[in-house]
Amino acid sequence: MITATSNPRVKQVVLWQTKARERKEAGIFLVEGFKMFEEAPAEWIQEVYVSTDALDKVKENQNYIDIKEKLDQVGYEEVSAEVLRKMSDTQTPQGILCVVKRPSYKIEELIAVENPMLVVLENLQDPGNVGTIVRTGEGAGVTGVILSEGSVDIYNPKTIRATMGSIYRVPIVYAEDLIKVTEEMRLQGIKSYAAHLSGEKYYDHFDFQKGCAFLIGNEGNGLTQGLAEAADEYLKIPMEGQVESLNAAIATSLLMYEAHRQRQMGE
Amino acid sequence: MITATSNPRVKQVVLWQTKARERKEAGIFLVEGFKMFEEAPAEWIQEVYVSTDALDKVKENQNYIDIKEKLDQVGYEEVSAEVLRKMSDTQTPQGILCVVKRPSYKIEELIAVENPMLVVLENLQDPGNVGTIVRTGEGAGVTGVILSEGSVDIYNPKTIRATMGSIYRVPIVYAEDLIKVTEEMRLQGIKSYAAHLSGEKYYDHFDFQKGCAFLIGNEGNGLTQGLAEAADEYLKIPMEGQVESLNAAIATSLLMYEAHRQRQMGE
Repeated sequence: MITATSNPRVKQVVLWQTKARERKEAGIFLVEGFKMFEEAPAEWIQEVYVSTDALDKVKENQNYIDIKEKLDQVGYEEVSAEVLRKMSDTQTPQGILCVVKRPSYKIEELIAVENPMLVVLENLQDPGNVGTIVRTGEGAGVTGVILSEGSVDIYNPKTIRATMGSIYRVPIVYAEDLIKVTEEMRLQGIKSYAAHLSGEKYYDHFDFQKGCAFLIGNEGNGLTQGLAEAADEYLKIPMEGQVESLNAAIATSLLMYEAHRQRQMGE
Repeated sequence: MITATSNPRVKQVVLWQTKARERKEAGIFLVEGFKMFEEAPAEWIQEVYVSTDALDKVKENQNYIDIKEKLDQVGYEEVSAEVLRKMSDTQTPQGILCVVKRPSYKIEELIAVENPMLVVLENLQDPGNVGTIVRTGEGAGVTGVILSEGSVDIYNPKTIRATMGSIYRVPIVYAEDLIKVTEEMRLQGIKSYAAHLSGEKYYDHFDFQKGCAFLIGNEGNGLTQGLAEAADEYLKIPMEGQVESLNAAIATSLLMYEAHRQRQMGE
């Protein structure tokens, strides 16, 4: 049991919480809470820290029987409530924190699946937006998310939280050059659609039943000109009143669910 | 020109920034930035504070000619950069802050419009979610938003920011008793739809071309049983993978835009 916040493992976790580069070099990310522990693939889990309080709850409460079994299976380290608070990114930690190995997908894999529905995010900055896109993406049947390297760190604790567990299940890749990615997609028969102000056709007038990729630009500036020009089609989302744009996560969700709707109808 | 942060008007604004009750009693809300000033109905604007820097920019830059005219029209108070920073809710204020009168709508008005599309929010807590719903709602042609009194303050600075100006244009009302509201809606021929886990029919299989209202529950707990039972219909949003629910703003946006899509097709 760890009771000292000066313990080197505690210090390591605190470093991982705050430094994206340290997390990247170690090839890990941190998750907190029972739900995120429960949904984590066992083979990805590297370290588990559980506070004494949380451990008592797990042992005493029949509702936590699956958690208890998984803890025994993967192994864990008991820590004091104070140590867990120190390691946690949240103000009211749930008492369990895990170090999880990052999955490593390749762009070629994401492009090679059958009938892909991809989301390509260029320089998105808001962790909540990106996490919400991954979560909604799983719901809509997205087969992968590709981010430019200028985007927010998907393994940021805030992003992880916003994914609500979808981080484990949606293949995610960072790409150096999104223009090259659209070219590779085109060779595989995947059409790329840019949500763009100069689009003239509404998003629900396209056919997304075949392989498709939605290109989504930065919250404030939209797509860069280069990537917009690389897209196969421009589309627009209708907007009443004086609305000039929608939130990036909302716009992406409307596109993904329109594709989902069409694919359900086509079956 | 105000240069002292001890000035009573500055203190009053700081109080309004932090205390929802004070804002409510005064019947006002605060907005920041040029865009929010520009879009504010002139007759709603009660006070305008502009920092010396921002004022110089407005006077020198031809792009701000509309802002300059509006400032001259409604009147303003010049303040030092330090005073504006003190009054502002943001870390990098844009140099302009306005005190705006709250509009006062009545539920009867929201229900009496032709072919209404209403959104009813029960105990939503996240300011970003509520602001995003109002913004997307304007885009989708929503005719009004009704909130339970247990919901977040719509005039919270974070909510206001997330509305991106839609706060001026979407009629919004707080209601004491949402169950009573659904009954009043029913009498006016407005059908209420609850996004609910026990829904068996997908949302795009309903007809939203006539008067409709979407009932949306709290982020963590969903709708209260009472309000869910008061709904005319339950609907569900399809979710692939292991997704159990969508973010409240995302779910609401999908419903509003499905209604918009149907209403466009019906025209």
